[in-house]
Amino acid sequence: MEQTTTEEKSKDRSGWNTVYIGRQKPVMNYVLATLTCLNNSPNVILKARGAAISLAVDVAQITMHRFVQGVKVSNVKIDTEQMQSEEGGTRNVSTIEIELTTAGEPEAQA
Amino acid sequence: MEQTTTEEKSKDRSGWNTVYIGRQKPVMNYVLATLTCLNNSPNVILKARGAAISLAVDVAQITMHRFVQGVKVSNVKIDTEQMQSEEGGTRNVSTIEIELTTAGEPEAQA
Repeated sequence: MEQTTTEEKSKDRSGWNTVYIGRQKPVMNYVLATLTCLNNSPNVILKARGAAISLAVDVAQITMHRFVQGVKVSNVKIDTEQMQSEEGGTRNVSTIEIELTTAGEPEAQA
Repeated sequence: MEQTTTEEKSKDRSGWNTVYIGRQKPVMNYVLATLTCLNNSPNVILKARGAAISLAVDVAQITMHRFVQGVKVSNVKIDTEQMQSEEGGTRNVSTIEIELTTAGEPEAQA
């Protein structure tokens, strides 16, 4: 409810919806954000880094198996990001991007 | 050193090497197991579930960026597994499988 702005979801330049997954909120909040995005777009990217990576996989699996039929994982990318550490140096953090696609949407039937 | 048997690495029926990643050991142990597998096989699968998923991504990234040149992620699969919980019921756990391949091996050049 409060502060669901750029933190939780935002629209990419490319028109894709992106859900940034952190560890501050319950998993279901992110599932809800993902479902909202899937309502507006046939594609959603879930992004997470560090320890939130496993949460992102949970969000994808819960969305696919419990809420929306016909959603599938179209792509999974893993990468490394350089982050500024508090002591001044940089440290590497792993990242994940999970693309969900509503394949075979009713569009075709209409 | 102790007990690096089926727990840490094993050979699949298909001949692929698999490294199971947990949270009991330091990340570098799993990186070492991955490097050992890559010495014997051009393909390695890193498997993890639950909170160890983010560790598996770390292991893949550290292996690729710090130790072996020319290794790349050929596939990432995410899935759900049913686990028996201690109270008797079942619960769902997310899993990940990261395939690493030593692409561009001398094979192609020979």
